[in-house]
Amino acid sequence: MNEPTVAEYALGDVTLSSGAVLHDARLVYAARGTLNAARTNAIVVPSAYGGTHADSDWLIGPGKALDTDRWFVVATNLFGNGLSTSPSTSATNDPFPLVTLYDNVAAQYRLMTDGFGVASIALVTGFSMGAQQAFHWACAYPDIVEAIVPVCGSARTSPHNRVFLDGAIATLETAGPATLGRVWAAWGLSATFYRRELWRAISDATTVEAFVDEWYGATAFAADARDLRAMFATWRAADIAARSPFDGDYAAALAAIRSRAIVMPSRTDTYFPPEDSIVEVAHMPNAELRVIPSDWGHVAGAGVNPDDNAFVEAAIREVLASAG
Amino acid sequence: MNEPTVAEYALGDVTLSSGAVLHDARLVYAARGTLNAARTNAIVVPSAYGGTHADSDWLIGPGKALDTDRWFVVATNLFGNGLSTSPSTSATNDPFPLVTLYDNVAAQYRLMTDGFGVASIALVTGFSMGAQQAFHWACAYPDIVEAIVPVCGSARTSPHNRVFLDGAIATLETAGPATLGRVWAAWGLSATFYRRELWRAISDATTVEAFVDEWYGATAFAADARDLRAMFATWRAADIAARSPFDGDYAAALAAIRSRAIVMPSRTDTYFPPEDSIVEVAHMPNAELRVIPSDWGHVAGAGVNPDDNAFVEAAIREVLASAG
Repeated sequence: MNEPTVAEYALGDVTLSSGAVLHDARLVYAARGTLNAARTNAIVVPSAYGGTHADSDWLIGPGKALDTDRWFVVATNLFGNGLSTSPSTSATNDPFPLVTLYDNVAAQYRLMTDGFGVASIALVTGFSMGAQQAFHWACAYPDIVEAIVPVCGSARTSPHNRVFLDGAIATLETAGPATLGRVWAAWGLSATFYRRELWRAISDATTVEAFVDEWYGATAFAADARDLRAMFATWRAADIAARSPFDGDYAAALAAIRSRAIVMPSRTDTYFPPEDSIVEVAHMPNAELRVIPSDWGHVAGAGVNPDDNAFVEAAIREVLASAG
Repeated sequence: MNEPTVAEYALGDVTLSSGAVLHDARLVYAARGTLNAARTNAIVVPSAYGGTHADSDWLIGPGKALDTDRWFVVATNLFGNGLSTSPSTSATNDPFPLVTLYDNVAAQYRLMTDGFGVASIALVTGFSMGAQQAFHWACAYPDIVEAIVPVCGSARTSPHNRVFLDGAIATLETAGPATLGRVWAAWGLSATFYRRELWRAISDATTVEAFVDEWYGATAFAADARDLRAMFATWRAADIAARSPFDGDYAAALAAIRSRAIVMPSRTDTYFPPEDSIVEVAHMPNAELRVIPSDWGHVAGAGVNPDDNAFVEAAIREVLASAG
């Protein structure tokens, strides 16, 4: 069986990076596998925008890349995603404060250390905003994080990515989630994906328009609009350098990531493009750039396309073979 | 002086590719230079989405790449752009029919042949939808078009570009032009452009947000919404293969372009990416791919950045040195 234990870790009132307080904060997570006696076999998998812990199920289980026969794997939920404390679930946090990715990983750190008593973390890996959290983990807790594998995400949200998000946020506010889905359709997947009609591999649609309806229609941004907004704010503010002692020095913050890292952008990702990763890896002392040779755009890291999955899984297995 | 003669060519009722009729069609153009006795020194410069003939002023004039001391240069206006027959100017065309790029170049052909009596056209060059028109010219009139230099545009609107446009159209319809500008900001210019803050070269803004306000704010899509819609419909339908004898055979339509061609995508263009051009050039018998080595995204071809301008101008001068 591969059913996780989904549970909630109560953090109490949490003072955020901004100084604001997140009241009665709760971190929802899914744990699988068993912590070993030395408490050194933990892995953390943070969630992506609009997703949940369940989106990493493809990676986690007996014999999978995150092999629960050997590893204790904790998949966490981003604040604002509707499971961990979110605008839609928490009337006491209204207006909902900006929760940064440092705030998110600080909560995850408490879960892992105070909650589970882990001594070290073999790996933090995640997709998109999950990848961003992996960078934040390694920068905030260099002594505990052995390795990170960020997939299709950056250590900070780039200026272009912010401009992209501002368009998305404006669309959400003025037109609503259905139009946002339409706009997102051309961002999430690549020009080559659409030219080669690769959507036929994941859809019974017979036209590209029908595929877009299916994937980016009413269900794509079906979450509570307040939650969507809160997660956009978190994404937009993502920046490993936005804390002491870096104070905006991006290169210094990257240099502080001593963990082994395999940084895995998708070749055709348009909002987390490989060139951001190239800049990042150049500053990181123990990092390798390994571009996913994919036509699937950002979605390459989402666990949808078997070839991309195999490429990511191989990197994770490689890192874990010498970790823990 | 470099002031053009702006005039209107009356086409009468025009039967369009669809079979619908565009009533009392008028093509507005700007002519500069003098037609030679043999009528062989004509150049056509079609306009881009949301633009006018005036947007190519940077290329046209005495001593410029399109040197009006030698060439007779006609810059045309796309139907729907508010100058040539458009929803906003033509109550007799309501609802406004789909006007394809073949319909556009057919009107331009009548202007050039019946109107000016030209025997051949040395060059058709244009940016974005203007580039698309250059492809259509060469495919429709292979015996008259000596050369084309399409800049940041494709011979057909790719599936990804259509998905992108559907997002833009949905945004225009449900949120309006201000939000459309916000969405466009991340498409028009590249990730590298924003990372390197290249906007400082063309703006006094001190933040990226202020730059986006200035360039993609209320003025970016200030045209009549009906005109914006009509031009989007034209763009979306662009396809050189969408006529007899090609009937959808894209490779055959490209192979029919015998004109010399220098196809010039921008390295960082996200909606007319170089890989579309690579596919196209591979099928064209007399074409060269020359990628603009630019960080300016789609805007590389818009005449805004001096380095990109020089790169495009050099190609045009090269083609014209052996033409006419």
